[in-house]
Amino acid sequence: MSITNLQQTLLKKIETGLQEIDLPSDPVTLYGPYRYALTVGGKRIRPMLSLLACGLCDGDIEEAMPAALAIEILHNFTLVHDDIMDRADKRRGQDSVFKKWNENVAILSGDVMFADAYRKLNYYGHSDAYSKEEYAAMHEVFVKTIITVCEGQALDMEFVDRDFVTHQDYIEMISGKTAALLSGALQMGAIAAHTTAGKREQLAELGYEMGIAFQIQDDLLDATADPEKFGKRPGGDIFEGKKTYLTILALERADAQQSTLIQDILDDENPKAEQVDQVLSIMKELNILNDVAREIDQHYQKAYQLLKKFRTSEYQQELEKLLIFLQNRDH
Amino acid sequence: MSITNLQQTLLKKIETGLQEIDLPSDPVTLYGPYRYALTVGGKRIRPMLSLLACGLCDGDIEEAMPAALAIEILHNFTLVHDDIMDRADKRRGQDSVFKKWNENVAILSGDVMFADAYRKLNYYGHSDAYSKEEYAAMHEVFVKTIITVCEGQALDMEFVDRDFVTHQDYIEMISGKTAALLSGALQMGAIAAHTTAGKREQLAELGYEMGIAFQIQDDLLDATADPEKFGKRPGGDIFEGKKTYLTILALERADAQQSTLIQDILDDENPKAEQVDQVLSIMKELNILNDVAREIDQHYQKAYQLLKKFRTSEYQQELEKLLIFLQNRDH
Repeated sequence: MSITNLQQTLLKKIETGLQEIDLPSDPVTLYGPYRYALTVGGKRIRPMLSLLACGLCDGDIEEAMPAALAIEILHNFTLVHDDIMDRADKRRGQDSVFKKWNENVAILSGDVMFADAYRKLNYYGHSDAYSKEEYAAMHEVFVKTIITVCEGQALDMEFVDRDFVTHQDYIEMISGKTAALLSGALQMGAIAAHTTAGKREQLAELGYEMGIAFQIQDDLLDATADPEKFGKRPGGDIFEGKKTYLTILALERADAQQSTLIQDILDDENPKAEQVDQVLSIMKELNILNDVAREIDQHYQKAYQLLKKFRTSEYQQELEKLLIFLQNRDH
Repeated sequence: MSITNLQQTLLKKIETGLQEIDLPSDPVTLYGPYRYALTVGGKRIRPMLSLLACGLCDGDIEEAMPAALAIEILHNFTLVHDDIMDRADKRRGQDSVFKKWNENVAILSGDVMFADAYRKLNYYGHSDAYSKEEYAAMHEVFVKTIITVCEGQALDMEFVDRDFVTHQDYIEMISGKTAALLSGALQMGAIAAHTTAGKREQLAELGYEMGIAFQIQDDLLDATADPEKFGKRPGGDIFEGKKTYLTILALERADAQQSTLIQDILDDENPKAEQVDQVLSIMKELNILNDVAREIDQHYQKAYQLLKKFRTSEYQQELEKLLIFLQNRDH
């Protein structure tokens, strides 16, 4: 994505805001990992969404900063805990907190990140610019967001052991795991701009559509990866036996023979490349790649439509660019 | 403790409130453990403190219920995560969530309990009876409380590997780990009663004194346990090599020879009963048992003094009874 001036300004604001978070030095095993988790990077899409939503609703960007930081800290808290649950050693190319310290440190520093994210909302409690209703709305969106994320993560863990997962179940899972935070980030930015409930609702939907599109697209990109371009064969998820939107749809549409074949290959601990290709061809035969690509497009279209309802502004253009960038990504 | 009518009424209110918490049935691996953690019991001291503080400040007990439930859910969240960190299989005589399900389930259901505790405060956002300032104070006390608890828990974990821990360090640790929640529970009850900042501050201190006294007393009771009465020998903490207020004071006061002896026995994986007794006699020699008993008494006295500043009421009497019960317990 070519970086625009506005984007650069906002990103700098976010990075400075994150660096300036005032943490005690002790206990070092609590605040060290917290600081580390925040500074190993990330694209800062969620706080960016809060600031853009605030601008989109004609608010003062500065006023959305505590909400943006809260959302980014919250997001990183979920990653710190997810990495324990997934036994993931790496995060953004660096050691995860779980790996760099240990599990107990990751549990507890994650907990304090959640708490400190929450504490950022104190700003709206003290500022006279916000009514009690707005302050309450900020808390309610924030806490609803994290509860929905937990539900999505729990479903994701349950799906591993479940024999049958429908594509509707899968959408419910990613609505929680991915879309909720995007939706929450946008809504909190809108509240910081003192906007109407109607506009907030539109932004909530926009975040939802964007999140669903993004996550399904991840699954599609895995199946259509160009080995020449990315040095990896398509079908990594099939190789790992993961339940994705594509494998779930494939099992739903397959006849008995195809279904047995797909399931056997997914269950295989170490399938051969030809077998993975076999599943990919069944998917093509069942028209899954095309249908999923269309479905992703529909979600993005809904997001564009929702965005058009706002007054034209540089923030609107920037959000549109972000959507275009996400829609056109090839990895 | 002989159960009074008021106490019975409040306990019933708390248990009913906890049972009536409306949780979705799915995801079952998220809300099942949450429900379980809340219903395996506990003395409900913290929510009781919220209700008593509300009554003490002439408030309507009903209005303190959401705060009381929030505090009890929060407390149970910390236990669910602590049990993972301590690898504890049992909690209140039942399997811990960590043991009954697994670590990942315990991490995630703990997270959602924290979030849902937080969500209980929405009540004060919606109720016209509370000003924005009161609603903000409720959130601020709540979030400060959990951050302090995390800090205490982190210090506790750090102390295991630290060579030298002073008795001041230890007090700081238990201030977080134990006293903060009692202090937070009382303050939130006071806010629910629309009380003054001054009264809230007195209750914050009362909770602090009570928590410190309670925790040091735990350490003292371990060293003075009557084997005939409780079927366990005194000095269990010494046997396990734990850093307690008593062992820390002993090491601070001991001469070089005593210090080496104590340290060797604490470091011993499997010390003999005579060795544990040897540490206990050094403690007596150094006047530690008496001094600690006096210190506990001083903390309780401060708590009584703070309580006397409130108007005489059945709530004041009940809180006094609770303090007397805690002070006089022998296990």
